[in-house]
Amino acid sequence: MTAQPGPARRRELHLNAFLKPPGEFLAAWRHPNAAADAGVNIRHVIELARTAERARFDAVFFADLVGVPFADQEVLSRVSVVNDSFEPTTLIAALATATSRIGLIATASTTYNEPYHLARTFASLDHISGGRAGWNLVTSLSDAEARNFGLDRHVDHELRYERAAEFFAVVTGLWDSFDDDAFHHDQMSGIYFDETKLHRLDHRGKHFAVTGPLNIARPPQGRPVIVQAGSSDRGRALAASVADVVFTQHADLAGAQAFYADLKATARAAGRDPDHVVVLPGLSTIVGRTLDEAEDRFDRLTSLLDPRVALADLAYWLGGVDLAAHPLDGPLPDLPPSNQSQSAQRAIVERARAGGLTIRQLAQQRARDVRTVVGTPETIADHIQEWFEGRGADGFNVIFPYLPDTLDDFATLVIPELRRRGLFRTEYTGRTLRDNLGLPRPPSRWALP
Amino acid sequence: MTAQPGPARRRELHLNAFLKPPGEFLAAWRHPNAAADAGVNIRHVIELARTAERARFDAVFFADLVGVPFADQEVLSRVSVVNDSFEPTTLIAALATATSRIGLIATASTTYNEPYHLARTFASLDHISGGRAGWNLVTSLSDAEARNFGLDRHVDHELRYERAAEFFAVVTGLWDSFDDDAFHHDQMSGIYFDETKLHRLDHRGKHFAVTGPLNIARPPQGRPVIVQAGSSDRGRALAASVADVVFTQHADLAGAQAFYADLKATARAAGRDPDHVVVLPGLSTIVGRTLDEAEDRFDRLTSLLDPRVALADLAYWLGGVDLAAHPLDGPLPDLPPSNQSQSAQRAIVERARAGGLTIRQLAQQRARDVRTVVGTPETIADHIQEWFEGRGADGFNVIFPYLPDTLDDFATLVIPELRRRGLFRTEYTGRTLRDNLGLPRPPSRWALP
Repeated sequence: MTAQPGPARRRELHLNAFLKPPGEFLAAWRHPNAAADAGVNIRHVIELARTAERARFDAVFFADLVGVPFADQEVLSRVSVVNDSFEPTTLIAALATATSRIGLIATASTTYNEPYHLARTFASLDHISGGRAGWNLVTSLSDAEARNFGLDRHVDHELRYERAAEFFAVVTGLWDSFDDDAFHHDQMSGIYFDETKLHRLDHRGKHFAVTGPLNIARPPQGRPVIVQAGSSDRGRALAASVADVVFTQHADLAGAQAFYADLKATARAAGRDPDHVVVLPGLSTIVGRTLDEAEDRFDRLTSLLDPRVALADLAYWLGGVDLAAHPLDGPLPDLPPSNQSQSAQRAIVERARAGGLTIRQLAQQRARDVRTVVGTPETIADHIQEWFEGRGADGFNVIFPYLPDTLDDFATLVIPELRRRGLFRTEYTGRTLRDNLGLPRPPSRWALP
Repeated sequence: MTAQPGPARRRELHLNAFLKPPGEFLAAWRHPNAAADAGVNIRHVIELARTAERARFDAVFFADLVGVPFADQEVLSRVSVVNDSFEPTTLIAALATATSRIGLIATASTTYNEPYHLARTFASLDHISGGRAGWNLVTSLSDAEARNFGLDRHVDHELRYERAAEFFAVVTGLWDSFDDDAFHHDQMSGIYFDETKLHRLDHRGKHFAVTGPLNIARPPQGRPVIVQAGSSDRGRALAASVADVVFTQHADLAGAQAFYADLKATARAAGRDPDHVVVLPGLSTIVGRTLDEAEDRFDRLTSLLDPRVALADLAYWLGGVDLAAHPLDGPLPDLPPSNQSQSAQRAIVERARAGGLTIRQLAQQRARDVRTVVGTPETIADHIQEWFEGRGADGFNVIFPYLPDTLDDFATLVIPELRRRGLFRTEYTGRTLRDNLGLPRPPSRWALP
């Protein structure tokens, strides 16, 4: 069942559609073309997934928080998606029966879940979708999330990565409970599965004690695709050792190239084939038929963002720092060490320094450090091609500032341009998400070599 | 949004389709017409749900265990569904987009889950399905499940019901985080929701500390339908106070009538309208055009059950007792108190005493105490009518010994007979599962009276 060695494959560009209806931009819901209620409008989300499937994206990808990010209720009341959206595993299950080929990636936290439930949920999703499931492994971000699970503060950065590594070992162990060929369904003899092909896990570690076995057959993909976005040292080490897809964010190509080279080298040092770690930086785009049109669209969108929301969001991603104590038209202050996402904090600081931005400028430009490329189909394709061929990226997590427009534009304007350049598929060639991504099916730990 | 007082409604018969592909009977997968791989065959399960929807069942219903029930691997290898089936919440999400009107009920444990996750999952399912979700609240059964969650033994019966009550209070509190009319989506003012209509839970109890709010709008049904099957004193008290639907099992009509009267009285004493607690005993049927044909079908099915499996299953439902230490052709021994399902143990003991059965007879008849009625469409309709009109039942959880045949037979033979008698709907009249069940939409705890 594993991939056979064969002739070297041509390197392929991969595109995930990072969907956060009604759009990644915090004020997206105010755009006149946006569906303001998109967070809980299943018909709308199905249409987005079908659009992405028609465009032959590798996968749709749903982020997640297990709480709300802003304590200030006045700020909170002005944003949409973080308050009011589907839980991702149930959402991708619903999309599985409303689509047929596209991959389906849901985020779930190792800090506030039990590995038995998570292994089972994603195995079930992989069976339901016929091998199209992916798990974006996160360790969660904030104290607000911790407080929904009996804790006062978010679990310490080191400890939650330690827990994540053990969690991953338990989950993958549970997925291997049954060998791929365990189930005979032999109606005559009455033997449903070969008992020698069942393996109890009997895990006893620092964080978990899990006997197993998992009560479901091995996932069609062996393992659902593992996505990881940690860019701190601990996060990067985890990604290099376990991730099939790495979601990252960089302010420029040089930073992306350095990360790309480091991650592939670390994966190789960990005994992995670096081609089997697909590096996808985030890429937010606003497309126009002309540059002027694209810039008008961007200006119109950013004008919708309430400055209070922008500032609260910046403070959130900086780890909950109190920005009100500093002049808004001055530079970003030195920040204390954060217990939240260290990579997010670092990326924002890098952007502020590179651009010489004030707090107000930084907040208003974009409340979250995702690179937004504003341009024509040609200039955006240039950007993609430059990063791909320059080995800053194996493709992109394409982020949509407001939906459905920026997805429709990307699908109808940018993807055809990428195809004209021979950079992107016209049809799905495989059956599973691993096939889409050019990844082999991992053998069970119990399989003979 | 709550139901208005109005003229007394005619009492309606309710039918849930209790689906456990390839069938409830442990050897169902060996039946030549069964899909042996049905546990993880999504096309097959979708077809079953669509059949149930065409027949106008109130809901499909999926049971669950968070582990495997038998330690003996030789026994385990001869059964299907308990080893190898979809996780129920992901399954009903997938069914939500493959059906349009039927209710979708999934089982989830209060003993081995976090209330924040569970509240969110079922709120999401209710939004995805347009108000068709139900939660079968269980406290789990066995030590084998406990060992997948860091414990050596299943949580004590009293303690897990105490936890269940607090868990339920947290979940329903989280569902009321946003008022029904909180979301304005006012694009002009930038106010997404009215901040005065958001309520943080700030729960601190013995088992849980959960701040909230839940990050999703109030479920379309206010609360997904709550199903509960506890029949012990603690379980019955919980059901009377929180359940919309009670799933129960009785050996005869007199027992059912006593339970029904007691539960309705207890609900009334708890300040609830007894008509809003729908009592559905399990009803397993084998239908034939003649009684001989039905009995042949039943004999053929039961002949497929391996005696080792039957005996292991009986021991499991008796609370893990070692039956091998007793003569198989002698009576059931006195049993020590069980930490597992007390109602299941009691029902089996009652059946053994009522029938004067030996251990072997008890095990072989049916390894689980569900009443199987073997008959023609007319005799089965007689049974349903007698229990319904005799107030032993408001309807039934219809249990299918092997699938798809016994569902197809029930849909095409029994339901038309019930309709001829004016007992069962020909069309769905409401939009939500609560509508199907004749239940009002619960107001938020924050709503003005």
